[in-house]
Amino acid sequence: MSSKYPLLDTVNYPDDLKKIPKDRLPQFCDELRRYVIEVISQHPGHFAATLGVVELTVALHYVYNTPYDQIVWDVGHQAYAHKILTGRKSMFETLRNLHGLSPFPNRDESVYDAFTVGHASTSISSALGLAVAAEQLGHHDQHVIAVIGDGSMTGGMAFEALNNAGIQRSNLLVVLNDNHIAIDQNRGALNDYLLDITTSSTYNRIRKEVWDTLGKFERLGTRARAFIGTVESGIKQVVMKRSNFFEGMGFRYFGPIDGHDVVHLADILSEMRNIHGPKLLHVLTTKGKGYKFAEENQTEWHATSVAFDIETGKKLPSPKPQGPKYQDVFGITLTELAERNPNIVGVTPAMPTGCSMNIMAEKFPDRVYDVGIAEEHAVTFSAGMAAQGLLPYCNIYSTFMQRAYDQIVHDVCLPRLHVVLCLDRAGLVGADGATHQGAFDISYLRHIPNLIVAAPMDEVELRNMLYTAELSKSPFAIRYPRGNGHNLDWRQPFAELEIGRGRMIADGADVAILSIGTIGYEVGRALEILAAHGIHPAHYDMRFVKPLDEGLLHSVLLKYKRIVTVEDNVLQGGFGSALLEFCADNGYYPRVKRLGIPDRFIEHGSQQDLYKLCRYDAEAIAEAVRGMM
Amino acid sequence: MSSKYPLLDTVNYPDDLKKIPKDRLPQFCDELRRYVIEVISQHPGHFAATLGVVELTVALHYVYNTPYDQIVWDVGHQAYAHKILTGRKSMFETLRNLHGLSPFPNRDESVYDAFTVGHASTSISSALGLAVAAEQLGHHDQHVIAVIGDGSMTGGMAFEALNNAGIQRSNLLVVLNDNHIAIDQNRGALNDYLLDITTSSTYNRIRKEVWDTLGKFERLGTRARAFIGTVESGIKQVVMKRSNFFEGMGFRYFGPIDGHDVVHLADILSEMRNIHGPKLLHVLTTKGKGYKFAEENQTEWHATSVAFDIETGKKLPSPKPQGPKYQDVFGITLTELAERNPNIVGVTPAMPTGCSMNIMAEKFPDRVYDVGIAEEHAVTFSAGMAAQGLLPYCNIYSTFMQRAYDQIVHDVCLPRLHVVLCLDRAGLVGADGATHQGAFDISYLRHIPNLIVAAPMDEVELRNMLYTAELSKSPFAIRYPRGNGHNLDWRQPFAELEIGRGRMIADGADVAILSIGTIGYEVGRALEILAAHGIHPAHYDMRFVKPLDEGLLHSVLLKYKRIVTVEDNVLQGGFGSALLEFCADNGYYPRVKRLGIPDRFIEHGSQQDLYKLCRYDAEAIAEAVRGMM
Repeated sequence: MSSKYPLLDTVNYPDDLKKIPKDRLPQFCDELRRYVIEVISQHPGHFAATLGVVELTVALHYVYNTPYDQIVWDVGHQAYAHKILTGRKSMFETLRNLHGLSPFPNRDESVYDAFTVGHASTSISSALGLAVAAEQLGHHDQHVIAVIGDGSMTGGMAFEALNNAGIQRSNLLVVLNDNHIAIDQNRGALNDYLLDITTSSTYNRIRKEVWDTLGKFERLGTRARAFIGTVESGIKQVVMKRSNFFEGMGFRYFGPIDGHDVVHLADILSEMRNIHGPKLLHVLTTKGKGYKFAEENQTEWHATSVAFDIETGKKLPSPKPQGPKYQDVFGITLTELAERNPNIVGVTPAMPTGCSMNIMAEKFPDRVYDVGIAEEHAVTFSAGMAAQGLLPYCNIYSTFMQRAYDQIVHDVCLPRLHVVLCLDRAGLVGADGATHQGAFDISYLRHIPNLIVAAPMDEVELRNMLYTAELSKSPFAIRYPRGNGHNLDWRQPFAELEIGRGRMIADGADVAILSIGTIGYEVGRALEILAAHGIHPAHYDMRFVKPLDEGLLHSVLLKYKRIVTVEDNVLQGGFGSALLEFCADNGYYPRVKRLGIPDRFIEHGSQQDLYKLCRYDAEAIAEAVRGMM
Repeated sequence: MSSKYPLLDTVNYPDDLKKIPKDRLPQFCDELRRYVIEVISQHPGHFAATLGVVELTVALHYVYNTPYDQIVWDVGHQAYAHKILTGRKSMFETLRNLHGLSPFPNRDESVYDAFTVGHASTSISSALGLAVAAEQLGHHDQHVIAVIGDGSMTGGMAFEALNNAGIQRSNLLVVLNDNHIAIDQNRGALNDYLLDITTSSTYNRIRKEVWDTLGKFERLGTRARAFIGTVESGIKQVVMKRSNFFEGMGFRYFGPIDGHDVVHLADILSEMRNIHGPKLLHVLTTKGKGYKFAEENQTEWHATSVAFDIETGKKLPSPKPQGPKYQDVFGITLTELAERNPNIVGVTPAMPTGCSMNIMAEKFPDRVYDVGIAEEHAVTFSAGMAAQGLLPYCNIYSTFMQRAYDQIVHDVCLPRLHVVLCLDRAGLVGADGATHQGAFDISYLRHIPNLIVAAPMDEVELRNMLYTAELSKSPFAIRYPRGNGHNLDWRQPFAELEIGRGRMIADGADVAILSIGTIGYEVGRALEILAAHGIHPAHYDMRFVKPLDEGLLHSVLLKYKRIVTVEDNVLQGGFGSALLEFCADNGYYPRVKRLGIPDRFIEHGSQQDLYKLCRYDAEAIAEAVRGMM
């Protein structure tokens, strides 16, 4: 029987790829694309981004001498084709599973992964570091390539890196993968600018001729190149009003070119290899290319969470979750609050769909600000609005809020501005792995003065915390997890929570379990396990990491000498440590067993797998209680 | 007797300023400049930056209706003239003293301080927030101005904010105060670009005519303005190769103009008030303007630390410190290490003089990278170099390292890259106040996996930690304070320290004091105080926050039931909490008194004042020990 993938079958490493004649690369790309679609249809993961860069990936590995030449993929969710071409095809189906292939490029996984990635906008900085170091070490023939999307390009550190690269003159190629979309539609002046370039019909007419000429002259040496540069630049000057952003940064700019013409891509990359110094190739791609459902709805197909039928694009049924997604509880509740209070605004750095702020945006388009991938700006922009009297709810995933740590300290909490920081995806997020775990937020927020830090145990608490934050007049952070809750009946009337007040979930004897956040549900299951053995610890949902419920803690510590704390956060400096500080300051000397994320980076897997791995799933909690008896 | 400041004497608020005829503004600026020089010559503080913006400050308050119109000063070290003009002249001499005027604009101090500032590159974000909120609240006549230096403009969040402002179309004016210098000489492509604009002689010849024309036509309405815009843009296109950076960002660009011609500045600002939407005025100024010693040596006169003679520029004698500056111990030691190891490189975000990396730069100019004000990039760029095999020492003040928290987690520690993070100005820094205290680093670093966190007690330890970091092959952070040490004889041969190993400074009885970092010297003084009362606690210098010296802790905790911890860091999640975690995990139940920075932002004052205020000076440590007896 003939294979579905005759060419792809011959390729396990870039050296194999280089044996394919250039004119057969289109067929190879077709097979590679079909293979990605086939595997992801069965094994959910990031999807549309890889489809958009199949040709670019093939061309890069065809032309460059990887792994000696180094490719840094920004974010890395587009790097599946790269993984397949670099020795990981046979393991591709294990992607994102516990102990399987990493969801993003990872230096520990392959020498072809030049840098470990996951967060946006890092690639130019790290690639510049690689390139500058290569020069310094005398590897003048070594090439470093950063592949960055137009979405990531709005992140401030990408600009910092461009600004620095422009004066370093090292051998760096930045490939701007321009698909006009991040996860949601891109926002920002830079995007308008790129659109200007790519939609200028005059320029598009002329550029092919310029490129053809350029191709001919490039081999002729410096003077001819300088001449071409002048001509090209002159045409761009005249044709395009805003042509010089990247050249202003000291980069030689090439493009825009069709990112799905693999032969042309390979030709141009071959030419550009010989040009020293910082240079940028502007490549136009279509996110989801070659799979029509993904092309038509790029946001929905950014990543898949269930298997799907390739022919129809229909998602296959998966176990129905009990309750709503936490992000929807946020999105729906915020919209309700915004209906009642005209001063409420929403701020999101390029994640309206991911955090469900699109619900509010539909109803109040003028009161939701998508500021692009720009977490630092998002927080300080919110602070500015708060200083004027608006009430911003700024929603950023826990792991990305790490980018805005200084802005939380300096621009929100120091001036005590009433900004509500909503940290979605707090705790272990599962399949996205080490770069995306929201493992640190309790520890990095708890020591900031003037900040209230809350974590709901369930949907109703989340709803009421969002409401309470409105009434508080204080900087207020709320962290809640990825995934679904348990309550179908969560849309209850708003009730104000007392700030810094926890609650007893179950009275008991011998041991008190103090939990913060939704991990309290694991405690509930632990209580069931323990009840079967006749053990009945008490359970308290603390609700607030800061301020702590001191009254509740005094009563608990007077009654119990054995305490178990449970949190979906690192153990260093987290909620358990806050309890220890309270005990030390108030002269209590209980035995305390702290459960949470250990002092190492946690890989990918299902959330439940990871709770177990980190020893704070229900079984582990029950065992910890038994260990104390 | 006639006053030295006849016009300035009449002005306490902007309303007074507006009564001065425009043609007398130059005289007013002269008086204001002389007054600043006179006061700062007696009361040290930031100096050269304010001198550079005297005319700009006067023009802004002359034209705009502050405080209804809002001025946000980036960083804020240039805002002394602003303070003098807004009701704070009579208190100006208290600047930077304990309970005196804040060193930077502060919302709690004055309604004229539209935003609390201190860190670089925040102003466009916060001003955009203010401007967007003003629109939303219906204050269409309200103007918001961000004044930002060309140094701060290289910070990523400034770019994020420009990118976002370009599509918001709100009523924002960005004044780019271009003096081609931050504290040290500026670095980066943006700086080259600005230099291109301002040194283009052709353009400089033409721009005056354009401006004169623009001035005439500006009142004629939209069509005339559009025409002028086209003409102006066309000229710039032709004349300047890189004219469009800010226009590419969606801003209307004006300038460059002379920032020391106050009448012209006032005229142009008056014209620009009527132009809606985001606009940028490029103003050329001279840092230190009007004081020749400062103009000639802008880096040295960025801030003064002692009184000086106005006529001669000579610094007046001040008490001679005992030991060297910690920053010099860093700078000299790094240079020595670099002499021995060719793979060592230095990275600084615009602070070569502030951290003394200029010492290495003089000897190895090709191995020190000043990346501009760009902390995020500095860390990830370092990580890239480390991935290639170089060994970067990246020096960033503790408070500014907050900006790179995510990059430390994601780009250095997750891939376990051998980057040495050097945190100068850790702990309480003194006169620079709340925005600059290095209060949080132990807490924000301690919970990051794979990171070694060290803090030397003295110069020799700092030297040996820098050496040990070279040998460690691990991500390594070293925090040390502002100011001078105590040892003249610190340049001793390198000795490797065992990682995670502390040392006993003094044996004793009853109570053990565990300290981390240079605050150990306060402990030493406390021991002297206590010895006079016959009390002799033990003292241990822990050296490492992470990993903790578990062997030492076991032996201490077996011997002592009363422990005092001392750290120059917040008490939440800091070193004392690490000890509590160790005790809880290992079944020790000592009484623990933790001394350190309390849970609030700490204002400005001398370091010694602030230790006392925070209750961890020698007296307070002694009192804590007595309280335990």
